Amino acid sequence: MDSLHCKATDLIPLLGSATNATAAADFICHRFDAVFTKLSEATYAIDNTYLLFSAYLVFAMQLGFAMLCAGSVRAKNTMNIMLTNVLDAAAGGLSYYLFGFAFAFGAPSNGFIGRHEFGLKKFPTSSFDYSYFLYQWAFAIAAAGITSGSIAERTQFVAYLIYSSFLTGFVYPIVSHWFWSGDGWASASKSDNHLLFGSGVIDFAGSGVVHMVGGIAGLWGALIEGPRIGRFDLDRTISSLAWPQCFTCSLGKFLVMVWMEVLLQLLQGCAVVEPWAAIVCGFVAAWVLIGFNKLAEKTKYDDPLEAAQLHGGCGAWGVLFTGLFAKKTYVNEVYQGQPERPYGLFMGGGGKLLAAQIIQILVIFVWVTATMAPLFYGLHKLRLLRISSEDEMAGMDLTRHGGFAYIYHDENDDSNLPQFEDRKIEPTTSPKQEHNSHSVV
Amino acid sequence: MDSLHCKATDLIPLLGSATNATAAADFICHRFDAVFTKLSEATYAIDNTYLLFSAYLVFAMQLGFAMLCAGSVRAKNTMNIMLTNVLDAAAGGLSYYLFGFAFAFGAPSNGFIGRHEFGLKKFPTSSFDYSYFLYQWAFAIAAAGITSGSIAERTQFVAYLIYSSFLTGFVYPIVSHWFWSGDGWASASKSDNHLLFGSGVIDFAGSGVVHMVGGIAGLWGALIEGPRIGRFDLDRTISSLAWPQCFTCSLGKFLVMVWMEVLLQLLQGCAVVEPWAAIVCGFVAAWVLIGFNKLAEKTKYDDPLEAAQLHGGCGAWGVLFTGLFAKKTYVNEVYQGQPERPYGLFMGGGGKLLAAQIIQILVIFVWVTATMAPLFYGLHKLRLLRISSEDEMAGMDLTRHGGFAYIYHDENDDSNLPQFEDRKIEPTTSPKQEHNSHSVV
Amino acid sequence: MDSLHCKATDLIPLLGSATNATAAADFICHRFDAVFTKLSEATYAIDNTYLLFSAYLVFAMQLGFAMLCAGSVRAKNTMNIMLTNVLDAAAGGLSYYLFGFAFAFGAPSNGFIGRHEFGLKKFPTSSFDYSYFLYQWAFAIAAAGITSGSIAERTQFVAYLIYSSFLTGFVYPIVSHWFWSGDGWASASKSDNHLLFGSGVIDFAGSGVVHMVGGIAGLWGALIEGPRIGRFDLDRTISSLAWPQCFTCSLGKFLVMVWMEVLLQLLQGCAVVEPWAAIVCGFVAAWVLIGFNKLAEKTKYDDPLEAAQLHGGCGAWGVLFTGLFAKKTYVNEVYQGQPERPYGLFMGGGGKLLAAQIIQILVIFVWVTATMAPLFYGLHKLRLLRISSEDEMAGMDLTRHGGFAYIYHDENDDSNLPQFEDRKIEPTTSPKQEHNSHSVV
Repeated sequence: MDSLHCKATDLIPLLGSATNATAAADFICHRFDAVFTKLSEATYAIDNTYLLFSAYLVFAMQLGFAMLCAGSVRAKNTMNIMLTNVLDAAAGGLSYYLFGFAFAFGAPSNGFIGRHEFGLKKFPTSSFDYSYFLYQWAFAIAAAGITSGSIAERTQFVAYLIYSSFLTGFVYPIVSHWFWSGDGWASASKSDNHLLFGSGVIDFAGSGVVHMVGGIAGLWGALIEGPRIGRFDLDRTISSLAWPQCFTCSLGKFLVMVWMEVLLQLLQGCAVVEPWAAIVCGFVAAWVLIGFNKLAEKTKYDDPLEAAQLHGGCGAWGVLFTGLFAKKTYVNEVYQGQPERPYGLFMGGGGKLLAAQIIQILVIFVWVTATMAPLFYGLHKLRLLRISSEDEMAGMDLTRHGGFAYIYHDENDDSNLPQFEDRKIEPTTSPKQEHNSHSVV
Repeated sequence: MDSLHCKATDLIPLLGSATNATAAADFICHRFDAVFTKLSEATYAIDNTYLLFSAYLVFAMQLGFAMLCAGSVRAKNTMNIMLTNVLDAAAGGLSYYLFGFAFAFGAPSNGFIGRHEFGLKKFPTSSFDYSYFLYQWAFAIAAAGITSGSIAERTQFVAYLIYSSFLTGFVYPIVSHWFWSGDGWASASKSDNHLLFGSGVIDFAGSGVVHMVGGIAGLWGALIEGPRIGRFDLDRTISSLAWPQCFTCSLGKFLVMVWMEVLLQLLQGCAVVEPWAAIVCGFVAAWVLIGFNKLAEKTKYDDPLEAAQLHGGCGAWGVLFTGLFAKKTYVNEVYQGQPERPYGLFMGGGGKLLAAQIIQILVIFVWVTATMAPLFYGLHKLRLLRISSEDEMAGMDLTRHGGFAYIYHDENDDSNLPQFEDRKIEPTTSPKQEHNSHSVV
Repeated sequence: MDSLHCKATDLIPLLGSATNATAAADFICHRFDAVFTKLSEATYAIDNTYLLFSAYLVFAMQLGFAMLCAGSVRAKNTMNIMLTNVLDAAAGGLSYYLFGFAFAFGAPSNGFIGRHEFGLKKFPTSSFDYSYFLYQWAFAIAAAGITSGSIAERTQFVAYLIYSSFLTGFVYPIVSHWFWSGDGWASASKSDNHLLFGSGVIDFAGSGVVHMVGGIAGLWGALIEGPRIGRFDLDRTISSLAWPQCFTCSLGKFLVMVWMEVLLQLLQGCAVVEPWAAIVCGFVAAWVLIGFNKLAEKTKYDDPLEAAQLHGGCGAWGVLFTGLFAKKTYVNEVYQGQPERPYGLFMGGGGKLLAAQIIQILVIFVWVTATMAPLFYGLHKLRLLRISSEDEMAGMDLTRHGGFAYIYHDENDDSNLPQFEDRKIEPTTSPKQEHNSHSVV
């Protein structure tokens, strides 16, 4: 914006030797300075409005995720999972506010971890306003929310609070520092990233930073907990209603994924692929999900929200996809002043960007595994991870929250806990009811 | 914005003959040019932010519509209608992306149909950015969503995919080209619209373009399918609970419509009526809906969401309303440089605008009928339109999605499909259950 | 913005005596004027976009509130409370449009009540655009929504319409005039507020203006109606499922409140406390709620949504909190040109701001009590307030809306209204059903 600034000492000699040259130059420059100030304020307001309302939308995604969870778990755990979603966000949010943001964006850093702005001290800075913090906060919470889906229906309350604080306060921020902070060792903004083939990693929407982190954390949680009781050890013909699955649902998920990908690609102001490639991305993503789901079924991996498969698997695909389809002109537009950057393999840009993207997948997998697997294992050994089988059979809504969100019928439970249900849910026996079969309405 | 541009050759002679005049002029003009660039960028950012977040809101309307659908159909079809809503949007969205937007806004056109920008090739242009596409996409999807309400609870999955692709890819875009594209034959932006009494049609919020198109398409779908089983052929005293209707609900809808209309009028930056007129509009709209509902009852027209009555009927009223109440000063403010434009009949503006609006209603009715009625009829003849009566009686959630969203009781079904329900939903018989009348809770 | 204006008569003498000085000055000034106009338009667009989308968000809060209500009342009143929420907003909205906004912001005023802009006549003005009206409207509706929670499950429909029109049309606007209008007697914007210790009241987010008003109105409504049948007079061991309460829920509410407070504080562009203080505020607020809930239990005060405790109690705490923790630099930033303003007691700013805040609590309590208590008492005496005990026992969804939102079982009702339930809900007796115990599914 230098060209907007106006210095009287520059202008005076230009206006000739007239006695009033000084006053004329002052007059003109004073106005240019005022224009400059106003323009800066307007730009600041626009940027912050955009960021702030985007942050609201990412928060609103939590609502959608809560709905998805409520619809994906068995009815007896509906209230529980909605509550844990809220608490995840609250506990993780405090943790991100106190430590996470500093680890992620507290520049200058050593490339691995940020170390300024703990508890948002000295906020707002010249680089960051609260709207930026909120925007990043929302993504941190989203990662923790993904993990909560993998361990749904069988996890203790205290485990949620511990893992989500750790994930949003430490594990996730480090990853976002690597790829999203200008200081990060793998950042694509670095003008010459020697570590990563002169490229750096391109991951605007968080396929790796958010989705893979949440999904891999969930993978370890679900693996260490093991499947829900009855998920693989009961006769599937009996339990088909309780474990819903249907062709239309699969087709639906498939189309929705295609559509979401296209939308996502269009919405990024700095997307590096063309819309038609986004459609390709979505179609492949749907098959990736189906493949990982088949694998999960075979290996008896139980993930109530399919979070590891969807966010871990399709997240990794999204990372690869950029390495394959990133278009030269878009990449150059986003990273201006670096005309010789690598771009997508299929677009003629060589394999360097793809190599960098593959390294992203590997380091995220290693880092999240190295931090979250020990945490979940520790919780497991301390008996803080899994709820009792009594609680699990009866449903958390009943044992922890005093009632059910809906009236439902789960055939599996009849054979397992008939007395329990009778005592708790059945109406008290009265003469009328014994002769009337409809009293439960 | 010409006045912001600054040419040194213009300024040099003005600054006198001093030797430094050239340098002074360059200095000043350079700064003005920088201001101009910055201002253009800021304006662009503001416009796109506004459009983008408005598009998000129109998309969010889909959520509200899904909720409305879920609450309006019988419980046994809840999951099905929510899924079809999502798929409508996904299939229709792809179709609009590939063809629809080009038909609607691919100027220059012949006035009837656009023919550029297929698959968003050469996007973004100087006139359109992605935010504009998203905004229009959201409206296209809304139109298809309206139609889905009319044919709910009895339509095959494949029919949804076909009609929504056709509607959002062809039928709807043509209509939006006529009225919303500057090139359209009926556009009010044309400085001198000879075809339409020197007026053109004023339809900012899509009363005609979105609501009537969706509603009339739904009308033909529902007419060709016929009513749901049991809607008119069972004793209404028995079925009063299954087909909910109540005075408070009607009053509620009434007040909400008044309120929505006022809001809508206030929210349009370019509304041409006063707030008090919007209240009038809402009150009349409520009576229009009640009237059309009575008519539907009499003619045994079954529309689970009342979509044809609400969107078709009240949409047409909204179109007429503008022709009656558009205020001169507001119309002139929106269409600047055309001081002698017609405006609302009741505001003293003569009948020309009203005549143009009536023509809008007629051409939309004819166009949608001519395209959608044959489509639905063809699907009907090919046996791709209506589900089997077994599926319809049992509910799509059970037969297609493996379970129900809620436990419910529909009295009609007992007499019709007792065996089916017994087999599928009742718990497996166990000694305990035969003696316990409450096992379904 | 004066410095942006450019007068040729000022510039001409400065440019020396050259014959072209006039033309040069015109040339330059013409461009500055154009810049000024463009900048004003951009700033106006930014401000209105921000305000408009904020208004949308406050409206969206109504959806969250409807969900909270649906989850907080017993299942038999779900549909009823969602409907009354919508109608509250519609009736209250019309009332705010016709009278409320004028009372609140119709400056110039006498400091107590505004008296211009009835029915938004002469809108938009130089000070207000429709986006500002919408924003304020959304807050007015929120206040009425709070009150509706306190009187849920036992109040006549007509009472909702009357109280919400009165509250949003008169009681609430007066309060918002006092504290939010620049003309208000207690406004902190007044440069020298002698009445309130040279301070005025700082209440940006409406802790007092919105939450206390809604909560205190609800307090009187609930007190005058009395508790719901069975809330305190039945054996609690029987009714534990019907009146849900659980430890996790309490902990959840607690954490959410802390989190919400932090968010709220961060989101206000003009917050006067630091983020760590917001965490303190949230922790204390959670204890305030718990305390007031204990008090309500002891005094047998029944408020289905805990609205008086939460919004009244914690709202008052929020008001006090600002008097304790407002930071000097933030206060000076918001109220520029008044460097010696009082600020928070705990931040070294003396007790004057706290005293002003305490006065806010007192006057709001007195004003709302003096207006709303007589209104509710009058409705009570006219038998327009409480529904019949028959309606209350059976549930409004059944008696007024022809059905239930969910199937549920409330043990209390069996002993009270067995015959009623049998007649209305049970399937018609058929031979099949008498021998089949599962017919209610």
